Amino acid sequence: MDKIESLAKRRGFIFKSSEIYGGLAGIWDYGPLGTALKNNIKREWWRLVVEERDDVVGLDSTILTPPPVLKASGHAEHFFDLMVDCKKCRSRFKVEDLYKNSAKKELDKCLNCGANNWGVIGRMGGMFKTYIGTGEDEDSVVYLRPETAQGIFVNFKNVIDTMRVKIPFGIAQIGRVFRNEVTPGNFIFRQREFEMMEVEYFVKPGTDEKWHEQWVEDRFQWYLNLGIQKKNLKVADIPQKDLAHYSKRTQEIHYAYTFMPAGWGELEGIANRTDYDLKAHHLKYYDDENKKTYIPYVIEPSVGVDRIVLALLLDAYHEEKEKEERRIILKLHPRLAPYQIAVFPLLANKQNLISKAREVYQLLRPRFRTSWDDRGNIGKRYFSQDEIGTPWCITIDFQTIEDGTVTVRDRDTKKQERFKISELINRFTQKCSP
Amino acid sequence: MDKIESLAKRRGFIFKSSEIYGGLAGIWDYGPLGTALKNNIKREWWRLVVEERDDVVGLDSTILTPPPVLKASGHAEHFFDLMVDCKKCRSRFKVEDLYKNSAKKELDKCLNCGANNWGVIGRMGGMFKTYIGTGEDEDSVVYLRPETAQGIFVNFKNVIDTMRVKIPFGIAQIGRVFRNEVTPGNFIFRQREFEMMEVEYFVKPGTDEKWHEQWVEDRFQWYLNLGIQKKNLKVADIPQKDLAHYSKRTQEIHYAYTFMPAGWGELEGIANRTDYDLKAHHLKYYDDENKKTYIPYVIEPSVGVDRIVLALLLDAYHEEKEKEERRIILKLHPRLAPYQIAVFPLLANKQNLISKAREVYQLLRPRFRTSWDDRGNIGKRYFSQDEIGTPWCITIDFQTIEDGTVTVRDRDTKKQERFKISELINRFTQKCSP
Repeated sequence: MDKIESLAKRRGFIFKSSEIYGGLAGIWDYGPLGTALKNNIKREWWRLVVEERDDVVGLDSTILTPPPVLKASGHAEHFFDLMVDCKKCRSRFKVEDLYKNSAKKELDKCLNCGANNWGVIGRMGGMFKTYIGTGEDEDSVVYLRPETAQGIFVNFKNVIDTMRVKIPFGIAQIGRVFRNEVTPGNFIFRQREFEMMEVEYFVKPGTDEKWHEQWVEDRFQWYLNLGIQKKNLKVADIPQKDLAHYSKRTQEIHYAYTFMPAGWGELEGIANRTDYDLKAHHLKYYDDENKKTYIPYVIEPSVGVDRIVLALLLDAYHEEKEKEERRIILKLHPRLAPYQIAVFPLLANKQNLISKAREVYQLLRPRFRTSWDDRGNIGKRYFSQDEIGTPWCITIDFQTIEDGTVTVRDRDTKKQERFKISELINRFTQKCSP
Repeated sequence: MDKIESLAKRRGFIFKSSEIYGGLAGIWDYGPLGTALKNNIKREWWRLVVEERDDVVGLDSTILTPPPVLKASGHAEHFFDLMVDCKKCRSRFKVEDLYKNSAKKELDKCLNCGANNWGVIGRMGGMFKTYIGTGEDEDSVVYLRPETAQGIFVNFKNVIDTMRVKIPFGIAQIGRVFRNEVTPGNFIFRQREFEMMEVEYFVKPGTDEKWHEQWVEDRFQWYLNLGIQKKNLKVADIPQKDLAHYSKRTQEIHYAYTFMPAGWGELEGIANRTDYDLKAHHLKYYDDENKKTYIPYVIEPSVGVDRIVLALLLDAYHEEKEKEERRIILKLHPRLAPYQIAVFPLLANKQNLISKAREVYQLLRPRFRTSWDDRGNIGKRYFSQDEIGTPWCITIDFQTIEDGTVTVRDRDTKKQERFKISELINRFTQKCSP
């Protein structure tokens, strides 16, 4: 994990937010390469989940959310942690970690000093609150949304009324959410501001379990398609007692995050939210084939983009030793890598090599994320591109001038092959296709 | 404007946020088609400003911003409105609208009742404040960013250290910003939560005026390329006295928003921010060719995505009368339209027409934003697609089954032509190219 964090900072993936002012706990900024990686993940998700499906439409609702929405949704009542301090050693704990047994009545002794001398239990964490308009009174309170889902539910009727959708159908959204976590940490794993991708998929009650299974299967397959190693992924069923207040059943796709005590951590949750939310907001669906009104059930695949970034970086990170030197190779999928291709002139002081290389660069850039590098020797440029996950490096050399061929070097196999410039677009288009 | 707002709501472009709970002033949600339109605008901007340039990189920083950043940037001191109430009629005004003359010393009489009996001047609007962590004290205050620019400035050194950038270069960002406007309004023109696209372009002092002109020219051209009518665009120079605290000169691209009292309103601002921000954050640039350290000047093209959406909707909106019926045509550029192509089977009850139409639909959808419609008659489907700006409708009829040709109907000319299915991809690829 330290290696990932250091690579991420050194190569412009992820920086501590407002670092020159000391930073903020649990908040991270994405640098140029991290932004590209994150955008690519979002684009892939949106393409698969919205654009290529007939039954899902997109939405983009606001972050600021008025209290009635979050009161109806149960967040006002449920979305915080109960905390307690040990009066002896002053350590602070989540109450739920201290219960003696599953009856959840009596607190066990302090996990740090062993005392049994607890202070008053208090609420912490939860949602960020602010004031809208000109006053700072209770009427002006709004919250920063803790999930994008409620923005979807409150627009359920708007979507029904304006789009030609019929159950089963989904509404998808990508956007920032805010949770004032008591214990943020593990780099970008648990943040106070992060980005979620959520689908609320509305189904007929009774078909919910089948659809739940289907979404779990589809979402799991997606991670495999992105190149994450199967051994690092598993599906876990959340025990009944740990379910969120709205859930009938939640399955989580877990990734083998190296830093997790149990070896595994949540990547994506797929919840059966039942009719909890629509009922709470007094929303219904009219089925005009059967002339019946009912409240749909909801299957919700929900994932933080940042957790995918972290899983991808951990999964793609490889080290090799080459002549005493440690090489880092980031084996990112070509559809996700910040750059797909890097173009080099063999020498940086030969004008004919440079202009030929610029030609190739200009040819590829409208179609692929293409980087230009003419600094240092070729070995160093490979080293540098491997580290940021660029799948292919193209070198323009003297033979290029003669016969119009270039060297294409593969990040993972290290194999170098010569291809005609005229073949490049077809070749890479194929390799970068979904 | 009322027509635009009604169309936007009726066809799933834009809804009042949290409408089922009465909504929030100055906050709007984007429905399925509005989300697509907004995403297309953002993608075009990002492609042009980041991906196709060698000298601009992307960034994605957090919304939560600690006070020292905004103190240094001058926002803490300048970013609010002074307001005053008339004691007689209780109307509330911005103080700047009431000054008797340019000396800005004495207030004129009430614009509503004519009295000259003012209350105490107070601060209003400005930034949204919240608390991070476990306390609600001064140490825990953070703000929701009022612009994305400061996230860029505080990462200036990170970008210099990790990317191979040399002056002149830019850092670009798209993201939500929050301004607690005292008087939000005019639909999505002035909102309290909206999305900005900003470039901070760092240049050598002395070259700033040239770069400023260049950016104004490039940005103006972009709007023409998106199909906005030239007669509805102009460049305005902001008078010295109205400049923001950081600006040496600001030029604005104005659009002829119909609802503006003066007939024109700001679409995009291009400011010469000088070295104000980097100086404020104690940041410098080392020029390793000339072995000199200096503080770069900054040119900032900055635009709200929502204002582009509004300008596009106003500009694209056309009405025609056809046999007593009012037709609405939204003449959106093919790269921006939510759907680029709609595919229809001529009749919805002929299985061979439907399966052939599905074939065409499946062929086009991976490459173009493609919609399917088999409801009502063809005339109604054209009507419906015109209203949401779909440039082309393809009908599969009995002749298609015989000779593999389809009817392509053009939104703007209403002309219908027959093409072979095998020609469609090439034809539309050309028409949709940048």
